[in-house]
Amino acid sequence: MSREIAEQWYRALAVGDRDALARVLHPTFEAHVTAGMPLGLGGVYIGSDEARRRFWGVIARHYRARAVPEAFEMLPDGRMLVSGTYIGTAIASGKPLDAAFTHLLSFQDHQIIRLDQLTDSGRWHEALGENGPLETIDYSMADGIATICLNRPGERNAIDLQVAEDLLIAARRCAADRGIRAVLIKGNGSALTVGGDIGYFAESAPPHGELLRRMTGPFHEAFRILSRLDAPIVTAAHGSVAGGGLGFVYIADFVLAAEGTKFATGFAALGLSGDGGGTWFLPRLVGVRRATEMYLRNRVLDAREAAEWGLITEAVAPEELAGRADELVRELAAGPTRAFGRMRGLLRTAWDNTLSEQFVEESEALAATGDSMDAGRAIEAFAAKSRPTFEGR
Amino acid sequence: MSREIAEQWYRALAVGDRDALARVLHPTFEAHVTAGMPLGLGGVYIGSDEARRRFWGVIARHYRARAVPEAFEMLPDGRMLVSGTYIGTAIASGKPLDAAFTHLLSFQDHQIIRLDQLTDSGRWHEALGENGPLETIDYSMADGIATICLNRPGERNAIDLQVAEDLLIAARRCAADRGIRAVLIKGNGSALTVGGDIGYFAESAPPHGELLRRMTGPFHEAFRILSRLDAPIVTAAHGSVAGGGLGFVYIADFVLAAEGTKFATGFAALGLSGDGGGTWFLPRLVGVRRATEMYLRNRVLDAREAAEWGLITEAVAPEELAGRADELVRELAAGPTRAFGRMRGLLRTAWDNTLSEQFVEESEALAATGDSMDAGRAIEAFAAKSRPTFEGR
Amino acid sequence: MSREIAEQWYRALAVGDRDALARVLHPTFEAHVTAGMPLGLGGVYIGSDEARRRFWGVIARHYRARAVPEAFEMLPDGRMLVSGTYIGTAIASGKPLDAAFTHLLSFQDHQIIRLDQLTDSGRWHEALGENGPLETIDYSMADGIATICLNRPGERNAIDLQVAEDLLIAARRCAADRGIRAVLIKGNGSALTVGGDIGYFAESAPPHGELLRRMTGPFHEAFRILSRLDAPIVTAAHGSVAGGGLGFVYIADFVLAAEGTKFATGFAALGLSGDGGGTWFLPRLVGVRRATEMYLRNRVLDAREAAEWGLITEAVAPEELAGRADELVRELAAGPTRAFGRMRGLLRTAWDNTLSEQFVEESEALAATGDSMDAGRAIEAFAAKSRPTFEGR
Repeated sequence: MSREIAEQWYRALAVGDRDALARVLHPTFEAHVTAGMPLGLGGVYIGSDEARRRFWGVIARHYRARAVPEAFEMLPDGRMLVSGTYIGTAIASGKPLDAAFTHLLSFQDHQIIRLDQLTDSGRWHEALGENGPLETIDYSMADGIATICLNRPGERNAIDLQVAEDLLIAARRCAADRGIRAVLIKGNGSALTVGGDIGYFAESAPPHGELLRRMTGPFHEAFRILSRLDAPIVTAAHGSVAGGGLGFVYIADFVLAAEGTKFATGFAALGLSGDGGGTWFLPRLVGVRRATEMYLRNRVLDAREAAEWGLITEAVAPEELAGRADELVRELAAGPTRAFGRMRGLLRTAWDNTLSEQFVEESEALAATGDSMDAGRAIEAFAAKSRPTFEGR
Repeated sequence: MSREIAEQWYRALAVGDRDALARVLHPTFEAHVTAGMPLGLGGVYIGSDEARRRFWGVIARHYRARAVPEAFEMLPDGRMLVSGTYIGTAIASGKPLDAAFTHLLSFQDHQIIRLDQLTDSGRWHEALGENGPLETIDYSMADGIATICLNRPGERNAIDLQVAEDLLIAARRCAADRGIRAVLIKGNGSALTVGGDIGYFAESAPPHGELLRRMTGPFHEAFRILSRLDAPIVTAAHGSVAGGGLGFVYIADFVLAAEGTKFATGFAALGLSGDGGGTWFLPRLVGVRRATEMYLRNRVLDAREAAEWGLITEAVAPEELAGRADELVRELAAGPTRAFGRMRGLLRTAWDNTLSEQFVEESEALAATGDSMDAGRAIEAFAAKSRPTFEGR
Repeated sequence: MSREIAEQWYRALAVGDRDALARVLHPTFEAHVTAGMPLGLGGVYIGSDEARRRFWGVIARHYRARAVPEAFEMLPDGRMLVSGTYIGTAIASGKPLDAAFTHLLSFQDHQIIRLDQLTDSGRWHEALGENGPLETIDYSMADGIATICLNRPGERNAIDLQVAEDLLIAARRCAADRGIRAVLIKGNGSALTVGGDIGYFAESAPPHGELLRRMTGPFHEAFRILSRLDAPIVTAAHGSVAGGGLGFVYIADFVLAAEGTKFATGFAALGLSGDGGGTWFLPRLVGVRRATEMYLRNRVLDAREAAEWGLITEAVAPEELAGRADELVRELAAGPTRAFGRMRGLLRTAWDNTLSEQFVEESEALAATGDSMDAGRAIEAFAAKSRPTFEGR
């Protein structure tokens, strides 16, 4: 009996048969998914509807795969242990997926009421690979410069779960590329980004906490990774930069913005506390009083004010934005990447260290960069009164 | 003999007979008081004079109470153990006091040389209650707005021990009120506050360390509590704000000041290092160089400079101060209080956290506020292109 | 045989006979030196050349001393243990050196291939004493004011190992002087300092990490000590302040600079991450965006911009620099030194503390300074409407 239900379920999953799934899953179905799964998939899903949309649905967007059961074993307590393999390919990379699983199934009223899934999650990561196209971001790499271009122009690059997941993949690609020497962040369409996609949030009934938590997982992890790159980051902003989208401003070493660009947190209007790192960065970038105004009263800045306040580096004429950002990112890509990486790290950890600790870290970093090829040549060039060429090593 | 001395002492205490107290207490008398007593009363008092002024005197200002001894027991070492009850009422609240005590009395030369007091200090706190009038502060609560108005205009709201104690009570009332949605801080008379009451300090002979320590206990605890409220704080400053009184500026999210208001630390002129949180806040608000000038050279700012430097939010015409502050605090009281509370917390702890830690805390706070009633309605309103009403839940 | 080699070596050392040293030391000679030696001498030296220049050479600049061997003992493994005494005087102080040592010598091919030195390093420190002249810094003390004047004008006060060592000695003298009430830092010649002496670095073949590490040891330790003085520090800057030399700006409470003075980190041009504490101080002094520009793009500031940005306190006319700096340092030397010391400490540790922790530290410091002689008199003077005289106690 249970065996039959389980087999029905695997068939329904394989063909994506919603009605069959609805029949075989108990109304209070829960799925407990392996924590290490990519795309923020790990965790608990309450209800068959949530499992379908947020778990199997997300899998279906990124993989063509099916769960192939190989052995069914009844446990004394009435549960069933199914061993098998997920077989398929990741869509973006085309790479194969071949990951062992065990499913522990609990039954009630001739339906499956709970799934405890354990799978070789590393295989899922491998399959995603490093080079496939992303749904909402154009990622490219040339001449040591990685470009992350938000590409959801119809929604003014509003951030939904897909954007957060794609950003994480892009950030991981940057981190994995040994030849990277600078990063350019920009957006297609009329704005860099209007922030979180409120329309998308409003599709679900409140409370919204769980969906927001699911989004900030990959979103914040992406920023964390970008903050730790050796390569400096330039963000070119235009139109609007709002809400969590301000993270693209915070995470950059240099931000050029077209005159007229509007910057705002916007969270207070939604009754939300905010994401994207603003509570950490804004007091340091624009000071405590102004950070408070931006958060509690949703003060909107235009590009010139943003530059005066220190939120961005410079406001430029709109028609010059692309050229100026390109010029700057090329200049940085021709710099001493190892030293840039240590500078970036030191400037960030300066806030965590006592002065004495920072002196120690500066000494270590200075010795490390002093041993670099770039420093050796630069010191030689200095003595010869010539200009050094940096290779980023 | 000892029994007789003890009974004389209880009688002298009951009627506040200074001469009788002087006879019965040894010149080197020490009182060791239960640590948990309210109003900063816990601790050690050296000398009968200090015990009278700082311990029994403070009690007399806040309570009409007497110690009723019930059992006297001689110990083998010559000390006496007295058990009994403090009976009376707290003046401001009118609430009854009924707190058990034991007094361990030591004798020398037919006088009491030491008191070790242990009492049920929670009862003393209870009796103070939550609503009575305060001596030096007008505290009121209406429409979700708590108003803390310094009310010692004859001394330009100079801060003595009483002000510090009253501020702590006011802060505790704010924290205990579940309906609070914003706080307004202001002062009666010609200045918000000129800072510590130096004339009051000068009444005691040096060294002044112990008195200062006794004052900063409740004073700093009050600011610590205010810093952790969910409700945003607006301070309306006029005349002068000096010394530890700058704490009312630091602790506020928004500070409006009448043009012409003077701001100064003033500590260097007194040979003191300062209190009120200025060494923590000033470098963050106005930068390291300016904080140093304000501390080491006592640089005085007027309201316009203070706004330019980021010490305050805005300088306003004196005749508009009250109206503008009122308008702002009402706006904030109509906001998403839960989100404001998390924003305030995040902006404060941002200085203690690494960027990675802050990302985690932002995610948690976003999920928590995402589950709030206010966020649910605001997201709904956004989709319906209407304006949400926030209830602070 | 080994005994003979060892004796040749001691004779060669005693007379500084380079050729004899070259004969007796193996090409891959290593010296392992007692960690606690002064002047950054502790550590490992690879190669006889490095040992000669950086170990025995530095000793010869600071001491007239010889190693007097007293007992030679062969060990079963072929090594030799030599016990003896370093005898001589420290050049600057004229004080005697009398420090026991053991040398553990390893041999190969009739040459010494390794020295493990253990000596009573405290004696080496004592001999240096506290008052001798320094090679590259004029240090003087008068009227409670310590003056640290960089004095390598031919190299525009470029910083090599000697400058770093001398700065550490000067800082230690400041810290050891109980009567110190203010410090003035300035430079002879055309610039305060152009930063690290790149020509000196270029004398060694790359990699340069080890030399840089050796320099930042005493250099950073000097700044760490200066940051913890009670006495406030004034730096008078002119000409250029670059690279690690910006440490003289960061460490000061007040910086006056002649108009036209140039400030730059300069590290990126050398492929180095930087030293002198800039990654800790610059984000706090000028903000994150500007610190990034100064590090990653080597933005050069003149004195007026530096004052606007908060890097320095004030730009003054070049002809007024000396007088203004003198006036300021005298004003500070007439202040409440104990309170200044606590203010300096609190303003520095403010970055390491939570707000609650800072409230506790402010209370402690206020009580401590409240007990000072200076505060006692100042509070008395306030009551008497007179001006206090501070004695720094």
